[in-house]
Amino acid sequence: MKSIERVGVTSFPAHYSGPTLGDVGEHRAIEAIVSAAPSNRNGDDAAVLSHASPNSRAVATTDMLIEGRHFRVDWSTPEEIGRKSIVQNFADIEAMGARPIAALLAVSAPPHTPVSYLRGIAEGIHAKVGEYSAELVGGDLTSGNDLVLSVTAIGSLGGSRPELTLDRARPGQRVVAHGRIGWSGAGLALLERFGRDVPEHLRPLIDAHCAPTLTPGRGVVARATGATAMTDNSDGLIVDLTTIARRSGVGIDLHSADIMPPPIVWEAAELLDADPWEWVLTGGEDHTLLATTAGDPPSGFHVIGRVIRGEAVTIDGQTPKYGHGWVSF
Amino acid sequence: MKSIERVGVTSFPAHYSGPTLGDVGEHRAIEAIVSAAPSNRNGDDAAVLSHASPNSRAVATTDMLIEGRHFRVDWSTPEEIGRKSIVQNFADIEAMGARPIAALLAVSAPPHTPVSYLRGIAEGIHAKVGEYSAELVGGDLTSGNDLVLSVTAIGSLGGSRPELTLDRARPGQRVVAHGRIGWSGAGLALLERFGRDVPEHLRPLIDAHCAPTLTPGRGVVARATGATAMTDNSDGLIVDLTTIARRSGVGIDLHSADIMPPPIVWEAAELLDADPWEWVLTGGEDHTLLATTAGDPPSGFHVIGRVIRGEAVTIDGQTPKYGHGWVSF
Repeated sequence: MKSIERVGVTSFPAHYSGPTLGDVGEHRAIEAIVSAAPSNRNGDDAAVLSHASPNSRAVATTDMLIEGRHFRVDWSTPEEIGRKSIVQNFADIEAMGARPIAALLAVSAPPHTPVSYLRGIAEGIHAKVGEYSAELVGGDLTSGNDLVLSVTAIGSLGGSRPELTLDRARPGQRVVAHGRIGWSGAGLALLERFGRDVPEHLRPLIDAHCAPTLTPGRGVVARATGATAMTDNSDGLIVDLTTIARRSGVGIDLHSADIMPPPIVWEAAELLDADPWEWVLTGGEDHTLLATTAGDPPSGFHVIGRVIRGEAVTIDGQTPKYGHGWVSF
Repeated sequence: MKSIERVGVTSFPAHYSGPTLGDVGEHRAIEAIVSAAPSNRNGDDAAVLSHASPNSRAVATTDMLIEGRHFRVDWSTPEEIGRKSIVQNFADIEAMGARPIAALLAVSAPPHTPVSYLRGIAEGIHAKVGEYSAELVGGDLTSGNDLVLSVTAIGSLGGSRPELTLDRARPGQRVVAHGRIGWSGAGLALLERFGRDVPEHLRPLIDAHCAPTLTPGRGVVARATGATAMTDNSDGLIVDLTTIARRSGVGIDLHSADIMPPPIVWEAAELLDADPWEWVLTGGEDHTLLATTAGDPPSGFHVIGRVIRGEAVTIDGQTPKYGHGWVSF
């Protein structure tokens, strides 16, 4: 994705009124979070998790989101921010073929943050972890200049099949995807031009950027049905597939017809006089699961290309028009 | 602990020279971290952990540290910051009676952060997780205005004994402690007055604040030998024991003779014209393990008081002179 660039003090929308973190203090603010995202594993020094199956292994990943850089309070609702923070972390758990079971949330927030805003984030998290039968099991809240969310996701990897690493794609296998590609990038471009005031029919693109969705459990399905390597489309389709190609020592050829932007993305591109392929190839943040498999596409996945001998990602045999992706700094 | 209050742009000490994060970019900065704290579990979408014993459960906790608030780059070396970030998280894992096995590190850092500084933090983390036979297994690095570290610790809880929650202290049991009490508070007070230029013989107090230490494994020992409740001294002795008292529905009476500040703490107090009991009772951040037990003190622990009927924490039967502790906002 592109970096969102906005500096200065976070200005929360006026309809999040009521007491601020500075008014109520740390303990009551934590109570607001915990009551919005309750779990009986929360509230001790650390959370003890139960595994779904005997001898399952824990899987863990973390991502930090900074207001003004990864999200904006004038573009996303707090519920969307909470949901997105979970999806982007749970997608990494799913990309190993594991099942997300828990999340932890560390928050830095300025004292003028409305408690109702923080509660909104917690409600978004609670709604999203609930879709996975997971829980928000712990966290930390501290005062800071910026609104920063740091989410850690923990998953459970059962059974004896190997986890879906990046390095097991082999020539001849299919490249498959579960989820949308390019929607988040189109949504971000619309937000940059219009803010939230976009034409109603393009609204799903905004939603896809502010709160991407995946069908829970597709990663487990892919692992159970013979996927070999998997990742998620977080930094950009070409960048993320290049990581699989490089780590597996293979090339990947995508079929343009199978990653063609859908009509809604074309419409946004026309409105903005943009090239929708840039969003598809470099947008990232859709958190689409991208896998390779020797067999048929796992349920919920569709074929987008083929693993070949080589070392690069091509489209219909050609170098992609757009290849760069999201990089910090 | 008291809040460290310092605002403005982080100014890194001049001897951390060389290229900055803005110079080298995200990927090379991550390489610097990973090479300083290597793990073959790192580098995929998420890290897969092995448990020490069959059917062990995962335990997780997270803490966020913000420069200028939880630490200062002119007071602590990056190695100390890294070590402290692990100790405070691993103490929470140990406080459940579990064994720390892994850490994740999310970092926000301004573009002018020297890569050598970030590498120093990673080296401190690597040294400290190594003491526990644990590993830094994953993380995230992003650009932000402030230097923010968000660490998640994951532990393994084996065997069939219950974890050491806060709510199982019972009247008649002993209150026991492993570690120092009041040293970190004294060290912070010295830093506030003198910066790093303290008299040489008081240096251990600075070290105790900037990089507290615990003997790894004492939490597991306590659980194995009959401890009933446990926490760590993070927010202040009285505050943290009050949490056990409240959650267990008991009172706790401490013996002043058993928590008496040692000579080095008295010396710091005389130099600063301060009351060392304030550091002992409210300083926190020593991450001393505080437990209750019906039997003898577990190896490495000493008795500091007794669980009684009631609902408050007292010292020799009296209300403590200092009771408040660390609160954000």
